[in-house]
Amino acid sequence: MSGHLAVIGLGPGDARYLTPEADAALAAADALYGYGPYLDRVPARPGQSRHASDNREERPRAAAALHHAAQGARAAVVSGGDPGVFAMAAAVCEEIEWGPESWRALDVSIVPGITAMLAVAARIGAPLGHDFCALSLSDNLKPWELIERRLDAAAGAGFVIALYNPVSRARPWQLGTAFERLRRHLPASTPVIFGRAVGRADERVAVGTLDVAATMPADMATLIIVGSRETRVIARAGRLPLVYTPRAVAEVNA
Amino acid sequence: MSGHLAVIGLGPGDARYLTPEADAALAAADALYGYGPYLDRVPARPGQSRHASDNREERPRAAAALHHAAQGARAAVVSGGDPGVFAMAAAVCEEIEWGPESWRALDVSIVPGITAMLAVAARIGAPLGHDFCALSLSDNLKPWELIERRLDAAAGAGFVIALYNPVSRARPWQLGTAFERLRRHLPASTPVIFGRAVGRADERVAVGTLDVAATMPADMATLIIVGSRETRVIARAGRLPLVYTPRAVAEVNA
Repeated sequence: MSGHLAVIGLGPGDARYLTPEADAALAAADALYGYGPYLDRVPARPGQSRHASDNREERPRAAAALHHAAQGARAAVVSGGDPGVFAMAAAVCEEIEWGPESWRALDVSIVPGITAMLAVAARIGAPLGHDFCALSLSDNLKPWELIERRLDAAAGAGFVIALYNPVSRARPWQLGTAFERLRRHLPASTPVIFGRAVGRADERVAVGTLDVAATMPADMATLIIVGSRETRVIARAGRLPLVYTPRAVAEVNA
Repeated sequence: MSGHLAVIGLGPGDARYLTPEADAALAAADALYGYGPYLDRVPARPGQSRHASDNREERPRAAAALHHAAQGARAAVVSGGDPGVFAMAAAVCEEIEWGPESWRALDVSIVPGITAMLAVAARIGAPLGHDFCALSLSDNLKPWELIERRLDAAAGAGFVIALYNPVSRARPWQLGTAFERLRRHLPASTPVIFGRAVGRADERVAVGTLDVAATMPADMATLIIVGSRETRVIARAGRLPLVYTPRAVAEVNA
C-alpha cells in the first residue's frame, strides 16, 4: 500500500517554533486535516486540500485522514504543540487499532513539536528543571476521582505538575478544586505559572502562588505549571521573575 | 546592562529538529558555551568563539557564560534536547540566584527544543498520549530513596514514565532496580520503549516488555518510556509496532 499518513506538530503557534521536519512534512502533503484554528496557521499551498473539523472531533478526523491515506494519498493531520501530548497521535493510533486491518500497512510518521509546557517553562526560567509530570485536567475522558488520585500522587512525591486543558465552559469548577487538592500537599507559597499563547501576539505569562492561583485568569488555551517544594523564584527589577526547580534535591522529604 | 544570555535547545540531534528560533539565536551569539558533542553539532560561524566543557561541568559552564554576558557580550549556552528538561536552563538559573546581584539585570532568553521523550515517542506512536511523568534516574543529585518513592507514586497512579539518564558507568545497577520496583505496580507485559539517538545516523528504537526490560541495551544517551496499564501495542508486519496510550480511561483502578 502506497498511502502515507503524517501527524504533524506545529509547536505553540508561531512559525519560529515550527521545525524544518514539520515544515517539510506539511509541504509534502496532498491533504491537511485538523482543527480549524490549527489549519489556519499553515500557509496555503497550491494543489493541497484542507479539511477543517471541530475541536472535539478527534476520532472522526483521524479516520477521515486514514481513509484518504488508504486511497494512496499523502494525508497529514496537523496538531498544535506536540501531536503526542494530549493530541492527535493517540487518536490516530486508536483508529488504526480498531479500524480495517489494511490501515496497519500504511506508512505512518509522527513529527514531534514543541509542546506547551516546554514553551511556557522557557518563558519563565526552568520550572521543569527537575522531575515533573503532565496531567490533563479534563474529566471528559477519565473520571474526576482518577485526576484527584494523580494530583495526590504527583504532588505528594515532589513532582512539578504541568496541567493541560485546565478549564472550559463545560468544566468550570475543576481547576479550583485541583488547586485546593494540591494545597493538601504543598505550601501556600508554592509558585504557579500561567502561560497562554506563547509566541503569539497575545502571549500572556503570569506567576502567582498556590493560595491565590484560583483567582488568576485561565482558559482552555492556558497551560499551568505548579511547582514543587523545591521550586524557587528569583525576583528581577522591571521583569518577570525567573522560576526554576533546582537539579539537586538533598532530602528525601522534599 | 547590555549583556545577553541565551540558553538554546538543539533538539534531539539532527538539524531537522532545530527550530528557526534556535537557529536565529545561534546565529546572533558572540560566544557559544556547551558540552563538546553538542557544540560539534553547531556549524562554525566567523567571529563566534566556542567554549567546550565536560558533561558534568554545568554550573561552571553557566557561570562562565554569565560572566561573559555581564561584560556586554551575547553569550549562548547550547543544550541537547530542551534546555529546560534535565539540562542547562536550571543550572543557569541557579548561578543567577547565587551569583552577583548584577546578573539579575541581564537579558536572559531560553529557547525551547524537542526533548528526547517527545522524539522517541513520535518514532513509536503515542506512548505519552495520556498523563505521564519525566523522571531522571540519576542519583548523583538526589537520594535513591526519593527516586524509588517517585517510581512508586507515578506507576501506582497510572502515569506513563519517561526515564532520563537511565544508566552510566558510575551508575550500573539503578536501571535494573528501577524496573524491579516498577514490577510491584505494573504487569510483566507492560510495554517498555528504548530510544537512542533519534534523528541521527545511529538511531535505535526498540520495544520490549517490563519483565525483560533489564536485559535490553541502554546507555546514558538512551531515553526509556515505561507504559501504564492502559498502554497498547499494535503489531504491524515488517515494521516496529505502534505503541500508544489511549486518551480515555474508563476505570479509576486503571
